[in-house]
Amino acid sequence: MVKTTIDMNADLGESFGHYTIGDDAAMLDVVTSANVACGFHGGDPDVMASTFRLAREKNVTVGAHPGYPDLWGFGRRLVPFTAAETERLVAYQVGAAQAMATYAGHRIAYVKTHGALGNLSEQDSDVATAVLNAVQGVDASLALVAGAFGVLGRLARERGMTVYAEIFADRAYTEDGLLVSRKQAGAVLHDVDYISERVIRMVRNGAIETISGKMLPAPMDTICVHGDSAESVAIARTVRARLEDAGIALKAFA
Amino acid sequence: MVKTTIDMNADLGESFGHYTIGDDAAMLDVVTSANVACGFHGGDPDVMASTFRLAREKNVTVGAHPGYPDLWGFGRRLVPFTAAETERLVAYQVGAAQAMATYAGHRIAYVKTHGALGNLSEQDSDVATAVLNAVQGVDASLALVAGAFGVLGRLARERGMTVYAEIFADRAYTEDGLLVSRKQAGAVLHDVDYISERVIRMVRNGAIETISGKMLPAPMDTICVHGDSAESVAIARTVRARLEDAGIALKAFA
Amino acid sequence: MVKTTIDMNADLGESFGHYTIGDDAAMLDVVTSANVACGFHGGDPDVMASTFRLAREKNVTVGAHPGYPDLWGFGRRLVPFTAAETERLVAYQVGAAQAMATYAGHRIAYVKTHGALGNLSEQDSDVATAVLNAVQGVDASLALVAGAFGVLGRLARERGMTVYAEIFADRAYTEDGLLVSRKQAGAVLHDVDYISERVIRMVRNGAIETISGKMLPAPMDTICVHGDSAESVAIARTVRARLEDAGIALKAFA
Amino acid sequence: MVKTTIDMNADLGESFGHYTIGDDAAMLDVVTSANVACGFHGGDPDVMASTFRLAREKNVTVGAHPGYPDLWGFGRRLVPFTAAETERLVAYQVGAAQAMATYAGHRIAYVKTHGALGNLSEQDSDVATAVLNAVQGVDASLALVAGAFGVLGRLARERGMTVYAEIFADRAYTEDGLLVSRKQAGAVLHDVDYISERVIRMVRNGAIETISGKMLPAPMDTICVHGDSAESVAIARTVRARLEDAGIALKAFA
Repeated sequence: MVKTTIDMNADLGESFGHYTIGDDAAMLDVVTSANVACGFHGGDPDVMASTFRLAREKNVTVGAHPGYPDLWGFGRRLVPFTAAETERLVAYQVGAAQAMATYAGHRIAYVKTHGALGNLSEQDSDVATAVLNAVQGVDASLALVAGAFGVLGRLARERGMTVYAEIFADRAYTEDGLLVSRKQAGAVLHDVDYISERVIRMVRNGAIETISGKMLPAPMDTICVHGDSAESVAIARTVRARLEDAGIALKAFA
Repeated sequence: MVKTTIDMNADLGESFGHYTIGDDAAMLDVVTSANVACGFHGGDPDVMASTFRLAREKNVTVGAHPGYPDLWGFGRRLVPFTAAETERLVAYQVGAAQAMATYAGHRIAYVKTHGALGNLSEQDSDVATAVLNAVQGVDASLALVAGAFGVLGRLARERGMTVYAEIFADRAYTEDGLLVSRKQAGAVLHDVDYISERVIRMVRNGAIETISGKMLPAPMDTICVHGDSAESVAIARTVRARLEDAGIALKAFA
Repeated sequence: MVKTTIDMNADLGESFGHYTIGDDAAMLDVVTSANVACGFHGGDPDVMASTFRLAREKNVTVGAHPGYPDLWGFGRRLVPFTAAETERLVAYQVGAAQAMATYAGHRIAYVKTHGALGNLSEQDSDVATAVLNAVQGVDASLALVAGAFGVLGRLARERGMTVYAEIFADRAYTEDGLLVSRKQAGAVLHDVDYISERVIRMVRNGAIETISGKMLPAPMDTICVHGDSAESVAIARTVRARLEDAGIALKAFA
Repeated sequence: MVKTTIDMNADLGESFGHYTIGDDAAMLDVVTSANVACGFHGGDPDVMASTFRLAREKNVTVGAHPGYPDLWGFGRRLVPFTAAETERLVAYQVGAAQAMATYAGHRIAYVKTHGALGNLSEQDSDVATAVLNAVQGVDASLALVAGAFGVLGRLARERGMTVYAEIFADRAYTEDGLLVSRKQAGAVLHDVDYISERVIRMVRNGAIETISGKMLPAPMDTICVHGDSAESVAIARTVRARLEDAGIALKAFA
């Protein structure tokens, strides 16, 4: 069956006090789901409230986007927390996000892990288990957003949790369907035409396109785009427009 | 009608990482309600999880104890947040506490504000309103713990919220039923016999005893004791024992 | 004697990790002195090192710009530290800045206080004294940048310290030569032509121009400009060019 | 030549705001050198000022004790900073410590790295190089305290820096003269008689005693003791007394 709708998500709400990242208002007109930082690697209670309020007004689904407590490193440094500590720091952030969403008249639908925690939870089953224990320990009705071939999604499905599989619009994939490391040339795509066409091919085929051009059949519920620069906002807008031109409507998964 | 039961509460869960404050395990055998720090002025996700778990095991009711984001000052510096900012930082902490309590198999029953935020919310109606907006915005079923004669409790009752009135075991009261400033001599009581006898008089009479000995009739649901030093744990134990000897049973309000 | 040279300063090095504020490289081509954040209200060790290195390459004098430890509030919230605490948090930041400057091959020439600490130290003699105790306690050879009519500069001169008097290019002045509060209309100037002409009038006359147009004779060593937005960088560039057209060369005071 | 004097050092100044660790006043009567936390993994400007002041009064030499910026983890989590970032965060802390010492009438004589940074800088030459670049970049006259067989001390000596070699009173040594991992049984010694006798044997022989009893000749300038618990203070006192009974005087290396 050919997919005629798909979700589009981006990391938003990453500003902190006087420090601004991205153009959240613009991105909330493009995406159908927003992963909102929870105050540990980015975001603060004011930014969270504003982001949830604006998302509700624009009818955008919201998720909690927990990361390591490392504002300096923007959650990209792999701080070696134990699995037990990881459980608790994820649970804390999910709860804070739920409260801020409720306060702003919205509701958290899913959890997506950020940065170094995101990478590790896709690869390390102890960390993935910790994340899932946290999410279920706080609210068993929450869904997960995860990569199609990572351990986080697999373990979540084994627990019977709802998992939305994600593809990245601007990242190259290995032959195993994992992200090519940013340290490798060609890991990040910049050509908006190529990006748009590749996304449409992936959605139409229900398959991840690897760096060699091979198509790996994969679940596919949402496309991750970036929104932290003027260039990335423009790319996200174009990808959305091209998808719609190709007859694929943007619609929140949840 | 003479009171035959009363609640006893203390601030717990104030340790942070390698830094320990108080003997929470001991205090959880004395009090019937624990005000648990939410990670802004004290506490961290691990301490919160452990505290909620232990409280559940010992059948102690738990509340969220939000404060200013000032670990260095332990929430005792009056950081001039606006009312809107105060709403959001309280909402955030209440949500984080609810999540950690749920994760640990427990449930937040009430909110009590901490330190400089606590003092200000008893006196400033804008700040009190912000606190109540936050609590109701996150979970309308939550109760408040507040002083009998402060603005926070009054405004909460006007909104129809459940308010548990609190007296302090070891603090002197002005003729208006407010706390004598710590800067004034005699503000903090240290003699355990005097403290115990005064508490029993207040509970028996349903009245706050002022520094001049006058009795001000007042609602009275819970007695606040301290637990951050070996001396304070001993005082709390004795006050509890003397109350029980006087036929007043300790029982959680919620 | 007519002034033929003057210094121009701006707050730089305020970025933090992944969060960027301003275009420091551009501003270091405009100003002759840079007030560099010290990691408490903005800045981090990497940003400090880069800023000092670039300033040295561009032959720009550098100062330490200490503020309250409040990254969330960017040092603009008046956190009520005691005078003793203020001394120590200023001393700490001055030392950190000296080390980072030395590490980067540069040298701190002066101290200028930031944000809420800056405002308070211009008005409150206890806080001004604390700042001066800190600066002298760390390095008696350091100069101060301060307003012409504030208490900080007056007390510093009484101690025999070197004080560079500063005027603000884009802020209106009261009849007493103090800054008009930002809460008042007209406090901040936006018209680049008016700003440039007023600056030239003030420098030529050696006098602060008040909001009513009165000229108050005042010491005047440096002009403070902003650099935290594209608009402010453009204004700074124009003010510099107009000063040079008027025969007033830009030259670091130290 | 038989050693007749040796230095004794401990980590002090680790308290933070309302949070207290150890009995610094007691320890400053026992040790001859104090490694003072610099505000990143522990300590704050007030604690630093007080510790330096007290050390000066008691004639105790002081060093800067930089660690990772991780108060929650007390500097014991290995946060993966790059070498360049490590240089800068060490430089920053050394400068802050120098300023606070100067402010308190004292002077930093040496640098000793803390916790996870300490372990890594003894083993990883890139990190050791970063630490040394930082120290020399800030003040070429500063000495290092390092293990006898680690890479940090070796590289420092190659640069011509003054290195004071340290032995641990209560830690077992491998056959290579490195610390037995805390994860291994027997890594930490608790018997005060055994600890004291072993220290005396090591000092008399100028050799590190391995877990098998082998003696490895090694430079030896200072004995590291702990002071963060009542038990450790008692051990430190006893070790000092026994050394003195054995004719080995305690004397600061610097």
